[in-house]
Amino acid sequence: MTNEVRTAGRVQAGVRTGEALVAGPCRRLTPVILAGGSGTRLWPMSREQFPKQLIGIVGRDSLLQATVARLKGFGGDFEVAAEPIIVCGEEHRFTTEEQTRESGVDARIIVEPARRDTAPALTLAAFRAMADGQDAIMVAMPADHSIADLPALHRAIAIAAEHAERGVIATLGIPPTRPDTGFGYIRLGDALEEGAHRIERFVEKPAAELAAQYVAAGTYWWNSGIFIVRASVWLAALQKLNADMYAACEAAAREGEDDGKFFRPQAAQFGRAPSDSIDYAVMEHIGTANRPCDGVVVPLVAGWSDLGSWDAVWDAMDKDDSGNVASGRVVFEGATSSYARSEGGRLVACVGTTNIVVVETDDAVLVADRSRVQDIKGLVARIREQQAPEADTHRKVRRPWGFYDSIEHGERFQVKRIVVSPGSKLSLQMHHHRAEHWVVVCGTALVTRGEDQFLLSENESTFIPLGVKHRLENPGKVPLEIIEVQSGSYLGEDDIVRFDDTYGRS
Amino acid sequence: MTNEVRTAGRVQAGVRTGEALVAGPCRRLTPVILAGGSGTRLWPMSREQFPKQLIGIVGRDSLLQATVARLKGFGGDFEVAAEPIIVCGEEHRFTTEEQTRESGVDARIIVEPARRDTAPALTLAAFRAMADGQDAIMVAMPADHSIADLPALHRAIAIAAEHAERGVIATLGIPPTRPDTGFGYIRLGDALEEGAHRIERFVEKPAAELAAQYVAAGTYWWNSGIFIVRASVWLAALQKLNADMYAACEAAAREGEDDGKFFRPQAAQFGRAPSDSIDYAVMEHIGTANRPCDGVVVPLVAGWSDLGSWDAVWDAMDKDDSGNVASGRVVFEGATSSYARSEGGRLVACVGTTNIVVVETDDAVLVADRSRVQDIKGLVARIREQQAPEADTHRKVRRPWGFYDSIEHGERFQVKRIVVSPGSKLSLQMHHHRAEHWVVVCGTALVTRGEDQFLLSENESTFIPLGVKHRLENPGKVPLEIIEVQSGSYLGEDDIVRFDDTYGRS
Repeated sequence: MTNEVRTAGRVQAGVRTGEALVAGPCRRLTPVILAGGSGTRLWPMSREQFPKQLIGIVGRDSLLQATVARLKGFGGDFEVAAEPIIVCGEEHRFTTEEQTRESGVDARIIVEPARRDTAPALTLAAFRAMADGQDAIMVAMPADHSIADLPALHRAIAIAAEHAERGVIATLGIPPTRPDTGFGYIRLGDALEEGAHRIERFVEKPAAELAAQYVAAGTYWWNSGIFIVRASVWLAALQKLNADMYAACEAAAREGEDDGKFFRPQAAQFGRAPSDSIDYAVMEHIGTANRPCDGVVVPLVAGWSDLGSWDAVWDAMDKDDSGNVASGRVVFEGATSSYARSEGGRLVACVGTTNIVVVETDDAVLVADRSRVQDIKGLVARIREQQAPEADTHRKVRRPWGFYDSIEHGERFQVKRIVVSPGSKLSLQMHHHRAEHWVVVCGTALVTRGEDQFLLSENESTFIPLGVKHRLENPGKVPLEIIEVQSGSYLGEDDIVRFDDTYGRS
Repeated sequence: MTNEVRTAGRVQAGVRTGEALVAGPCRRLTPVILAGGSGTRLWPMSREQFPKQLIGIVGRDSLLQATVARLKGFGGDFEVAAEPIIVCGEEHRFTTEEQTRESGVDARIIVEPARRDTAPALTLAAFRAMADGQDAIMVAMPADHSIADLPALHRAIAIAAEHAERGVIATLGIPPTRPDTGFGYIRLGDALEEGAHRIERFVEKPAAELAAQYVAAGTYWWNSGIFIVRASVWLAALQKLNADMYAACEAAAREGEDDGKFFRPQAAQFGRAPSDSIDYAVMEHIGTANRPCDGVVVPLVAGWSDLGSWDAVWDAMDKDDSGNVASGRVVFEGATSSYARSEGGRLVACVGTTNIVVVETDDAVLVADRSRVQDIKGLVARIREQQAPEADTHRKVRRPWGFYDSIEHGERFQVKRIVVSPGSKLSLQMHHHRAEHWVVVCGTALVTRGEDQFLLSENESTFIPLGVKHRLENPGKVPLEIIEVQSGSYLGEDDIVRFDDTYGRS
């Protein structure tokens, strides 16, 4: 990576302010993807254990992968860091890494030791961006939005980056198409060239009447949650507005450890950071007497959606003549304006429904009126209180080595489908209360059982008696798939003694 | 069974007509349960392969079992045949027999060789009732209705039977509580004692406006589908009105075979019977110039429902304060007047729904507006055309020896849970394209594999290679439960060569 400054074609930008076109210390963009969300608003697909950004809500790829893919062709005349920074939660690090790698991108992944909302996350990213000696312009974007028109996004970011280079905080604003009460709004100040405006102020989510006034006025845009700001500018702003958060993140980043794959901020230091969003911590001070710097908003007209509810997902999708959206094995019979999704593979039939959302998964079915989808959050809280596992975990459980799915259980038995990625292995383990039968249905297994080690091919099986140390490993080049029949008096996941684990879990 | 005539307490009935209370040839009632329905209106729970009457729609017992249970305390002063007659379809005979036996009732089961609607079914029953030399009064009732107040039902039947004894066709009528367009109506003629009326005429399902007039007039009752008629009276009426049907059923009954468990009418003869309902074939002629005999309708106010749609099921159930009905793992969040049922064990959550029906099963989910449930029939026809297996078959498949459930499948494997009833055995069989692993998770299996025979207990397993003759048998006293992992290039149910079968299927 060079520090070369490219100026070709940027003369126009320099002309506007009358300044000579002197590049700052660095015309370099570093994408920052904020992937720490745990959104329950798209339950039952999105759950704490495997949230929205890791799932293909609007396509085959996960939203995180779609976000990563947006980085291609990004940056205009700016140099773009080859390795984006991704900030994610501890429990999602393996999947985040795997999905990013699948997308062909090497990312610097920051693993948040605790959940502290977006402001501390962006601050950690800013310290990492500073750490390589360059004061890059961060292009911070949530991992869980959808944007249809990528060239439009890229143009907006290039414009915003020119502003950010001059030390303002730039954000992308969405000219509103309806009086939505689910978004924050940005009140536009003076017009700048290329459709941008100074930010007069940030406005919290308004009530319906006020939202209608905002939209009618034409001087308010939605807050997209995409921010373009030089790392040093963000850090200075935060230091001024929230010294505690700044200090906690600075120490956490300084004392953090990089294991080559993940950067882990020091947990105790980070734990001291107050929880707050980018909007509350910084953006809402722009335009006030206490402002840390100026703000600029650049319009984004690109089919943007925050996919913040099933209603928003319905809205973002192509519809049939009756306004219906189907995903998977779905049949509509006289339905209108409905969204139905079969994720667990069952046939979903909607008869005469209007404005209804149906989401079917392996272990739960949601049926909601589209106008009431905001109540899903409360529903999930309620079933969590009742300790329903469906609140936070999926039936299919991802592990660093692959996944397992509990396909059937009875009083004294449980059947799991286990898929092990090529080259991966489970921990060397033992159970006190259950024996296991393994039948290989695809690929080749290397089995350790007590002192023995042997290979099993498709259609071969073995038996692991209770109390015997064992290990399952995929030595091959294709995924290994086994059916495991567990038998015993207690079949909980916690009946496991780990002796050795590749992923540091023993 | 004696032929004794009991007359105590029947003086009053005799008084009315001024006749001496002389019993007819037989004061004997024979319950006839019409269990040949294949209702798709309660899809996805009710399917051709395992229809409504065999399922616990409103309680734990199936509707057939609830119907059988209604026979207790039945008959008033009449002698009641110990063995009711049940008419069912070929594919449901084992389950019909099993469920009846479970209910502690020995039934004479007539297996219809083809589906011909209710008139031929009742005619077969009439010939069987005549066959024992007695001209019993048939109390014919559908197997798939619900009736809350049994004493009220029993009283109504006793009254109707007194009329039937005198050679009229009696029916139970439901004084209407709403202008339902889903029922036929009966126009009341002269009042008789105990609330009964002569039947003036039968009226087909009316349009909404007409239905409202009927209800307002107070002189129309719903047709309950319960008929009380002496066998000879029915046969004479049918002979007069539809000689072809009469002749076909007479020959089918005469040439039929009784194997001790099932009576099988001669198929080719029965095949000649035109398909028609009791209403069309006979009842609608009552009150016309062509009438075969008089008709009497006796009121039934007993919490009757034909459970003819999910809306009717919702209507028949107790509701919470918001008008919701839940069955199984269901959570309502701000829902009103909704019906939700989790049959496959998944958590079903309804958020803000109004007048919505949700029915979740192992392989399908129905979501319907309560006012549009009549469209389910069309839906099922549509998915049948698309050859979706969910149209007619359940994932869990009943067999005379127990059942199997296909819990998972992949490209080259399938996992089944197989439950074998105590003392039962599957056929001796062989597959050309698949091998099978069996793991016993409950009970004891007697396994035949090639020339070997051996026992397997819980937590033991065996392997059946492709092409090897095998048989699975439960020699024990508790259900045998195994997990079968099939592996091979073709896994269809039709890859089976049967060598010997207890149930006559080889």
